[in-house]
Amino acid sequence: MSSMPERADRTAVDPKAPDATAVVDVAKLEDLLLGRWADLRRSARALAGDPRFTKTEGLSMADHRARVLTQIKTLAAGGDVLRAFPAEFGGSDDHGGSLARFEELVAADPSLQIKAGVQWGLFASAILHLGTAEHHRRLLPGAMSVAVPGVFAMTETGHGSDVASIGTTAVYDPATQEFDLHTPFRAAWKDYLGNAGEHGTAAVVFAQLVTRGVNHGVHAFYVPLRDGETMAFLPGIDGEDDGLKGGLNGIDNGRLRFDHVRVARANLLNRYGDVAADGTYSSPIASPGRRFFTMLSTLVQGRVSLNGAAVNVSKLALVIAVTYGNERRQFAGGSDTDEVVLLDYAEHQRRLLPLLAATYAASFAHERLLETFDGVFSGRDGSDEDREDLETLAAALKPTSTWHALTTLQTAREACGGAGFLTENRLVSLRADLDVFVTFEGDNTVLLQLVAKRLLADFGREFSGIDAGGVARYMANRAADAALHRTPLLRAVQALSDGGNVRRSAGQLRDAQTQRELLTDRVDTMVALVAGALRPATKASRADAAALFNAHQHELIEAARAHADLVQWEAFTAGLARVDDAGTRQVLTWVRDLFGLSVIERNLAWYLINGRLSAGRARTVTSYIDRLLGRLRPHAQDLVDAFGYGPEHVRATITTGAERERQDEARAHYRAERASGDAPVPEKSLPRARPALAQPSPGARPVGTENLTAAS
Amino acid sequence: MSSMPERADRTAVDPKAPDATAVVDVAKLEDLLLGRWADLRRSARALAGDPRFTKTEGLSMADHRARVLTQIKTLAAGGDVLRAFPAEFGGSDDHGGSLARFEELVAADPSLQIKAGVQWGLFASAILHLGTAEHHRRLLPGAMSVAVPGVFAMTETGHGSDVASIGTTAVYDPATQEFDLHTPFRAAWKDYLGNAGEHGTAAVVFAQLVTRGVNHGVHAFYVPLRDGETMAFLPGIDGEDDGLKGGLNGIDNGRLRFDHVRVARANLLNRYGDVAADGTYSSPIASPGRRFFTMLSTLVQGRVSLNGAAVNVSKLALVIAVTYGNERRQFAGGSDTDEVVLLDYAEHQRRLLPLLAATYAASFAHERLLETFDGVFSGRDGSDEDREDLETLAAALKPTSTWHALTTLQTAREACGGAGFLTENRLVSLRADLDVFVTFEGDNTVLLQLVAKRLLADFGREFSGIDAGGVARYMANRAADAALHRTPLLRAVQALSDGGNVRRSAGQLRDAQTQRELLTDRVDTMVALVAGALRPATKASRADAAALFNAHQHELIEAARAHADLVQWEAFTAGLARVDDAGTRQVLTWVRDLFGLSVIERNLAWYLINGRLSAGRARTVTSYIDRLLGRLRPHAQDLVDAFGYGPEHVRATITTGAERERQDEARAHYRAERASGDAPVPEKSLPRARPALAQPSPGARPVGTENLTAAS
Repeated sequence: MSSMPERADRTAVDPKAPDATAVVDVAKLEDLLLGRWADLRRSARALAGDPRFTKTEGLSMADHRARVLTQIKTLAAGGDVLRAFPAEFGGSDDHGGSLARFEELVAADPSLQIKAGVQWGLFASAILHLGTAEHHRRLLPGAMSVAVPGVFAMTETGHGSDVASIGTTAVYDPATQEFDLHTPFRAAWKDYLGNAGEHGTAAVVFAQLVTRGVNHGVHAFYVPLRDGETMAFLPGIDGEDDGLKGGLNGIDNGRLRFDHVRVARANLLNRYGDVAADGTYSSPIASPGRRFFTMLSTLVQGRVSLNGAAVNVSKLALVIAVTYGNERRQFAGGSDTDEVVLLDYAEHQRRLLPLLAATYAASFAHERLLETFDGVFSGRDGSDEDREDLETLAAALKPTSTWHALTTLQTAREACGGAGFLTENRLVSLRADLDVFVTFEGDNTVLLQLVAKRLLADFGREFSGIDAGGVARYMANRAADAALHRTPLLRAVQALSDGGNVRRSAGQLRDAQTQRELLTDRVDTMVALVAGALRPATKASRADAAALFNAHQHELIEAARAHADLVQWEAFTAGLARVDDAGTRQVLTWVRDLFGLSVIERNLAWYLINGRLSAGRARTVTSYIDRLLGRLRPHAQDLVDAFGYGPEHVRATITTGAERERQDEARAHYRAERASGDAPVPEKSLPRARPALAQPSPGARPVGTENLTAAS
Repeated sequence: MSSMPERADRTAVDPKAPDATAVVDVAKLEDLLLGRWADLRRSARALAGDPRFTKTEGLSMADHRARVLTQIKTLAAGGDVLRAFPAEFGGSDDHGGSLARFEELVAADPSLQIKAGVQWGLFASAILHLGTAEHHRRLLPGAMSVAVPGVFAMTETGHGSDVASIGTTAVYDPATQEFDLHTPFRAAWKDYLGNAGEHGTAAVVFAQLVTRGVNHGVHAFYVPLRDGETMAFLPGIDGEDDGLKGGLNGIDNGRLRFDHVRVARANLLNRYGDVAADGTYSSPIASPGRRFFTMLSTLVQGRVSLNGAAVNVSKLALVIAVTYGNERRQFAGGSDTDEVVLLDYAEHQRRLLPLLAATYAASFAHERLLETFDGVFSGRDGSDEDREDLETLAAALKPTSTWHALTTLQTAREACGGAGFLTENRLVSLRADLDVFVTFEGDNTVLLQLVAKRLLADFGREFSGIDAGGVARYMANRAADAALHRTPLLRAVQALSDGGNVRRSAGQLRDAQTQRELLTDRVDTMVALVAGALRPATKASRADAAALFNAHQHELIEAARAHADLVQWEAFTAGLARVDDAGTRQVLTWVRDLFGLSVIERNLAWYLINGRLSAGRARTVTSYIDRLLGRLRPHAQDLVDAFGYGPEHVRATITTGAERERQDEARAHYRAERASGDAPVPEKSLPRARPALAQPSPGARPVGTENLTAAS
């Protein structure tokens, strides 16, 4: 992982420029990135690099599942994985620290991480948060120790995102003081459940609670599933294995069906809703809607930790691609003897470095999310608004970082060519395992719509005194007015004519306040415009309102993405302020600028259409990005080294130094051959007997094969 | 595969609009898409759906390899896979038809297709095209029958795209009339070779031919590898298995090393370069460069067939996602009783339908490529320029269609949610296998640079009489001038003011000539600008020229992409002209428009910055795309049905009608419950004892969990 190759010609150092002297303090930057829970992360990484926990590639599904089950039992015994649980049960009441550790497990094997998430983050956590003291005493120890591998049986084949509409019912029978748990049709089978395929001996099952003829909505029930010895399903229970998946095959996902299974009244996890022996329902939360959301709100920890895991995997991917890109050579450039290092190619920089910048942004944003989570779950920041902010932040960041991880893994894989396709180089394996992160624990597209709704709600509160027409007029004026009254710096940027000084205008784009204004303005404007368009929905029929909403679904999602970009940028900028080493701050500022301008470049058409950037300024965005790529290229290795991963985490053959050794050996071979004078003479350097024939005609050259010699 | 769901509210049919009556003639459209080699494609599809050849998911690598080896032997015996070979050896001299059939095999198992490609498209084909009559008689029969599973040993660990720089040497020894084949260092090991891991008993090895102290460049040698009985490597040969890969694990890729292996002089495949007994070198092609390109030019058939396979896989992915999207329901929309079909969501349409349009474009473009290929390889169109056009066309389309296939597979997988992640639904399996298509047989990024060079060369010829300054001035004027003198229709579009009639301006965007002008102008302008920027390279030092080229690498690649977009659009438009059924033509015209405008929308910033579109017109692009999505939505199922695949090719559980049955059963259950009067009453519909408590406060609702009920 150590490497500092020479700069490419196009990025030649100007000794007077600040980049000539900027040096990253890698150790300090690593500390900054590890953040508040650095020590816990380091100890979790020690486990994640331990051969007992690392993924063995190529195992059969059965062997992989067995291995992961053994691993989580080992972790339960000594892996400090129970921090989030109460001290009285052996935990530490440490919510943020627990997730910080959990996220690091992804470097061992994503299957292990997710299996651990099913057991402790979902199954045991549901007992803790939805059950009461008796449940904790009776059920938590087995769930925590994995004596009882557990299933979190919420999703059904027919209902994933829309949990409120699940079909499974639990009808209370006062005669026996039991619930009748039943799956009424095929679409109501529980599905995609970790531990359901093989290992689970109990489940927390979500079902519509019906008593005295009233459906009180979705509640959770603790249900024994299998005989712990024979592993046969208990009477009335049936299931199917989900079988092979695109990844995460160390987890035994499966389906469950209940045929009038009797569940003791005491097994209703009754913190938010209870049924008396006579069938009387009671709840501390009167509103069924609010009760439902409260019961599901612990799910946010899944999103928080997936966000962290996705960021970690993006880092691993970039360690691999940047290290290889700094060692691998291909095609002679301006030299007769040395081929060009891949990362010196401008396109290679264009592919990898913006992803590196976005990974830094996602990393800082994740730290903010985890701190927010810790505040809420510790009770320090316990207001409804705090909880709402946490939910929105998680819903904004999880889609952004999980899609980013897939893009980064794929780009890294392609940047490593055929070597990237070999499992021994890790990228394809990680990509396969991370794939489902974009649709589970909240489908990304669904989550972004939630974020958009929150943005609309906030906007609605802000403009509650103004009527619909007023908002529309306000926004129309605002959108049409290039010199935005709320953004003086933007106006200053725009005041430069297209033919103005490029250096000066790049200087302004690099100004943090300019980037902030551009990113903020986009979110505000998009939200206001869509809010205006949706106003009529409040007075429309349900069908018309749904149609209107659907007609603007894409804009809503785009507004939420823009919001997530802004959140990441703000978190990055706040993180920058904590850097005291001048060289590190300089380089990291370029990284932040590259992130901000890449977001702006991606949405350049919006800025142009809405009069926020002139054509000349828009060109400057791209040319300044090119400058930043050149400046950052010599620091790329430091920037990935600062992620702090060792070879035991990266586990890719091409980053072991093997490629550098091969390149050195090959160059030494040719150097020795040249020195010996024994090298064969190239035919093309010989004088020709028939020069007329030897002259290649440009038109006659099959162009398509040129790639084989002349790609750069 | 048959379905015609009701339209979404937002796309309600206007009975006077043409879309109300447009009906696709699915059978005719299928014929059109199958193209010139429809009969051969149909018979190949019969094999591709035959259980003997379809992929068995979840096999171990060893079992998968063994199965695929058996499969290609079965194909050799009766699969009509030898059409491209000469009649005298049992073939049909049918190049286009052979590839058309070959492409269809991807639906059986991509490993089978690629293993077949290694055996016949590379190994046997090299004997045919690089060898002479004696080689054909002696070596072709075994290669064709798979009696000799063969390796195409070109790529080395250290050199993939840059074949001219491979390190393996073959030094002629007149004393024994043998070549000394040698791997001088680790980076010169042959690598990533199909059949090298286990099954190959011979190889065509590419090495630097050295005789009498002169290196005549890369030549091909026929080299026995393993004992056909024991499968042990022959003396001096060693190898390694590449092991598990991200996909295509039915192929035994591996590495080979030669330690002074003696190769008989007769085993030099000597069509383009020969060595006499005394060591005298001769060649019918005097220029070493041209000779090299000629020897490699048969590789183009790999790119052509990968292009076709990628298009076929994109079609399969869309059959799955569109069929499921037409059956799967989630979230209540405007109705109390029926949930909304996924494809009625605007975002779902936005995700899938532009990919459907691009798949149609890629399909028509592939037919054109295959016809070009057939013309060249049959000798009908045998000029150097024809061959050059073929190479450029393949280099433009292969990157476009292979990246498109990965995007389509992933989008389809996400659009199917958790079900998409199950291997039984095929998408993850296809994606894993197709991944390497973007970097093998010519790395996509490298190929696009070739295309750019050809575009520059053509531009250079066109402007050969004008000096550098003249070109720069010409382009500067052209780029700055919104009313382009060469594009009167564009001027007409621009002449509309931003506040103009939206319907009329959408009408112009739908005009084929307008789309053509916009797409063509972008290619021409990008090429001219980069050509101007690169002019100084002709007078610069080699290092400076390389640096200048590198500084513009990204623009070159973007220009090539733009060219590929245009080629696809033109092929689509030409294909449209062959449709005589009015309804089909109408719908297909919308598909073409959606493709064209999606390309323009993707590059909207370019059109705005360069003054080709006003802000108002740019908005119209997006709003017209929205209209097209609504128009096409009711035809989506017909458009995927016309791909002509049966369930034996699709092999995804969710497209068997299972989802529709589940939805029907669930809706019938609730209907019956409502009709019986026994349905439990929802708590929220009851009068409240404590209305104050029951009133949810908007601020107190945890927003993050809303996704679970209110995603649309």
